[in-house]
Amino acid sequence: MRVRKKPWAAGYIKDHADLIVTDPKAQIGNWQDRFPSKQPLQIEIGIGKGQFIVEMARQHPELNFIGIEIQESVIAVALRKVVESELTNVQLVETDGADVAELFAEGEISQLYLNFSDPWPKTRHEKRRLTSPGFLKSYITILKDNGLIQFKTDNRLLFEYSLTSFNNFGLTFDEVWLDLHQSTKNDENVETEYEEKFSKKGPIYELVAHLAV
Amino acid sequence: MRVRKKPWAAGYIKDHADLIVTDPKAQIGNWQDRFPSKQPLQIEIGIGKGQFIVEMARQHPELNFIGIEIQESVIAVALRKVVESELTNVQLVETDGADVAELFAEGEISQLYLNFSDPWPKTRHEKRRLTSPGFLKSYITILKDNGLIQFKTDNRLLFEYSLTSFNNFGLTFDEVWLDLHQSTKNDENVETEYEEKFSKKGPIYELVAHLAV
Repeated sequence: MRVRKKPWAAGYIKDHADLIVTDPKAQIGNWQDRFPSKQPLQIEIGIGKGQFIVEMARQHPELNFIGIEIQESVIAVALRKVVESELTNVQLVETDGADVAELFAEGEISQLYLNFSDPWPKTRHEKRRLTSPGFLKSYITILKDNGLIQFKTDNRLLFEYSLTSFNNFGLTFDEVWLDLHQSTKNDENVETEYEEKFSKKGPIYELVAHLAV
Repeated sequence: MRVRKKPWAAGYIKDHADLIVTDPKAQIGNWQDRFPSKQPLQIEIGIGKGQFIVEMARQHPELNFIGIEIQESVIAVALRKVVESELTNVQLVETDGADVAELFAEGEISQLYLNFSDPWPKTRHEKRRLTSPGFLKSYITILKDNGLIQFKTDNRLLFEYSLTSFNNFGLTFDEVWLDLHQSTKNDENVETEYEEKFSKKGPIYELVAHLAV
């Protein structure tokens, strides 16, 4: 997602240091300290404007959520949603794409979400796709045993690639949805901003998988 | 596929015993004897009216093909196509659904095709789906090491089920296509009769996988 630079973003982020982390490597292994209650920790990588993670946090007060986003002007919008929600079980992380294995300790995360990640369609950019083997390796490191990865996209080629990538990596599929909005799981689906807009143009695909131990 | 009973079918099958086998268990381990040349053996389970396997045999004179079908009135139509084609690298098998592991020796088959198999949508009929674990086990037994299974369907729920079933069984994905006719593989796709008719109504899905040894 590309957005216009927001002049207010940097100051707003600085003013809400209780809700957003800008030096995440300092938190490794101690993320629970950022929340009032120690609860299972779920993360979303690439939160965009934050609708998904804020709604998840609202629906699941029994869980703690961390949302990671690279772009300052985007995460600032998400931060505004968190502030307005008054929720205490969601924290944001602004990072310029550090490997998540450098941000979290082994097994610190119970579930991981990837929503509408950049498809990077060119073969030479395969390694940038968030479902490529290098990233999967990091996810598995920070996830607890049998922790789930939930991946959602509207990009057919990225989903074909990801089904093969997850399978070849040795992940076990829990759920595959080839038209999520027409499925029996639609009732519990939490939409992203992008999804609300683009689901009219074609199917939303979803894969849920884990590494069996 | 349900078709009207054809009174001529039984007699026609009997008259072409050189092209169609009705006592397949007698052939186990000796299928190459049915062909003029010993060549890699590929099978299709559920050939319907036979368009796919006859066209495959025409395009691949370097391979031998065996097409299996339960319904007499359907396989009789396929047999007519084989007779008219004058091809010598395709044989048919009429069988009332015997386990393929009882028809072929271990490793006798180099590749296996499933095209538009009955979806058996009810959960209590799961075991009848040709992509359920019991069938996969038989396929692996008769396939040579790293032999491919290629599965094609237009049924979304069956394809979701099959992706999970293949993955959970431990098969390695080689290819996943979520809209085969719009894909780069479309040029080499050989259509079934059913596919020609129903591909206008929605995407054709395809999965190619093997058991890594």
